[in-house]
Amino acid sequence: MSDKPKFAVFGGGSWATAIVKMLSENLDEIGWYMRSEQAIEHIKEHGHNPNYLSSVEFRLEQLKLTNCINQAVEDADYLIFVIPSAFLHQELQKLTASLEDKVVFSAIKGIVPETSLIVGDHFNTHYKVPFNNIGVISGPCHAEEVALERLSYLTIASADDEKAQIVASVLSSDYIKCTTSDDVLGTEYAAVLKNIYAVAAGIAHGLGYGDNFQSVLMSNAIREMKKYVKKVHKMKRDINDSAYLGDLLVTGYSIFSRNRLFGTMIGKGYTVKSAQIEMSMIAEGYYASKSAYLLNQQRGKKKAKTPIIDAVYGILYENKDPKKTFKKLTDKLD
Amino acid sequence: MSDKPKFAVFGGGSWATAIVKMLSENLDEIGWYMRSEQAIEHIKEHGHNPNYLSSVEFRLEQLKLTNCINQAVEDADYLIFVIPSAFLHQELQKLTASLEDKVVFSAIKGIVPETSLIVGDHFNTHYKVPFNNIGVISGPCHAEEVALERLSYLTIASADDEKAQIVASVLSSDYIKCTTSDDVLGTEYAAVLKNIYAVAAGIAHGLGYGDNFQSVLMSNAIREMKKYVKKVHKMKRDINDSAYLGDLLVTGYSIFSRNRLFGTMIGKGYTVKSAQIEMSMIAEGYYASKSAYLLNQQRGKKKAKTPIIDAVYGILYENKDPKKTFKKLTDKLD
Repeated sequence: MSDKPKFAVFGGGSWATAIVKMLSENLDEIGWYMRSEQAIEHIKEHGHNPNYLSSVEFRLEQLKLTNCINQAVEDADYLIFVIPSAFLHQELQKLTASLEDKVVFSAIKGIVPETSLIVGDHFNTHYKVPFNNIGVISGPCHAEEVALERLSYLTIASADDEKAQIVASVLSSDYIKCTTSDDVLGTEYAAVLKNIYAVAAGIAHGLGYGDNFQSVLMSNAIREMKKYVKKVHKMKRDINDSAYLGDLLVTGYSIFSRNRLFGTMIGKGYTVKSAQIEMSMIAEGYYASKSAYLLNQQRGKKKAKTPIIDAVYGILYENKDPKKTFKKLTDKLD
Repeated sequence: MSDKPKFAVFGGGSWATAIVKMLSENLDEIGWYMRSEQAIEHIKEHGHNPNYLSSVEFRLEQLKLTNCINQAVEDADYLIFVIPSAFLHQELQKLTASLEDKVVFSAIKGIVPETSLIVGDHFNTHYKVPFNNIGVISGPCHAEEVALERLSYLTIASADDEKAQIVASVLSSDYIKCTTSDDVLGTEYAAVLKNIYAVAAGIAHGLGYGDNFQSVLMSNAIREMKKYVKKVHKMKRDINDSAYLGDLLVTGYSIFSRNRLFGTMIGKGYTVKSAQIEMSMIAEGYYASKSAYLLNQQRGKKKAKTPIIDAVYGILYENKDPKKTFKKLTDKLD
């Protein structure tokens, strides 16, 4: 790896576009892989992503755009993956280049459905990326506000603090403040779980519960997240740090969150299938609730008490009635 | 006190009206003191409060309305005070009846400006109400959602658990769930501090900060609240319980909160005076920020680190520039 590591971003969505924008404040050259040749051509011609955050203007001399994932991997030292977890496995199938010497940061908030692994574990298990080369980029952060250059805070987690610092330094700017952390697992699970709680918030909203209940739900959700994450990886952490509570709040309270919207449709009576068709996209929380639920069940008697995750799982996967399930849930909250 | 204690509510605002509604689900007789003779006449004639939550219909045979505070005190065993803290002192001046044998619960979220005391301490110090007879009714709860009978949770805190249970039982219904607590001081301070954080959220909003920053602000606010309340009364508590975090969230995220609105006006450039005139009401957080700041300063070296409260105090009382003050504040948050 050279003194000045090279960065590449993998993904063409709004969060990928936001991360490229952040990097463009600091780097002269950014590799950017996206699947769509059309989108690449559009960016090359017009200087902005046609599909996401199209108000963000890029200086083309900074961008090395490619729709060849192997080229993007080979040309970079630090790889930032921002592909939705539902498509990650399929995208990585194209890989012939090795990831073993690469530093891999995930800005994906989800569980890989095919392997039921969080992204870091997926890269470690299937692509031999050592844990010391793995990191997580976490919010609280909507891509849309990055586009507007509104002040946002990120948490950069890695077992190797030096790598976290390097990533923090290339993402920081007037409008981005980065904190580093060594809690890779906790940060990644928190980012996964918060999407389930956003689905729950949506279901509640769809069922007609109000702001009073929403605040009780979020208060219970952060306590549930604390218990869950403690089971995954016990260490000293303040669950009220921005990477955990902040990230939960920005998603759980956002009317733009696709997870919350998905939940709202379920609460209003849509089936899972019809909600997915209507949204023409997949909410991360849908997969996350299954994986998180099953992972917890595997712990047997040692499982964490997770009434909210259980309720969401029951509704989405066991065809339980949202109204009755939430009525029961309300008795378990305080 | 008889076997079946008698209850009276003091106040004519929206939260007082909501509490009378809750009690009306369980009690045959409720004393209700309010200052305005006109409002009383309107309720007697039309069955609803003309000024607040006017959609709530009361059964008149349940209500013992009076604009004589002494009569209301004398006729009841449990007194629930819901008068804004800014007017409490002045209202209590009318008292000739003794409070010494009464159980006094406060649903006021503020500090009495004339004495810089939280409400419980004010009643104890100035009206000789023993601490064992004092309690707090805390949210997270908007009055407006009580009117709509949307599920809401309350926390009833008292050093005397039996009294907390009694109050919980008369407030509980299909749409109100009550939890009891022995953390009177923590609950009351949390309810006071959250209004300051709601002012801060408003200032940030007024200055153009977005949802990403709001979530970071709330994440820092709950950590700051934890430190502050720990200094006031050290005991084992989970600051993420609904009485603390939930109450913070329902206020900090509410676009209806008068504290948040007041902050928004300040952030947009109104002076304190012009914001108060424009709103024609006083935001509790205005007084709270002064009292909470000064109380903390009195601790000298032992004071809690409270950058958010300090920033709000500086803007409201030291004429500091909101934009510059918040720019500095953002460096202290993480």
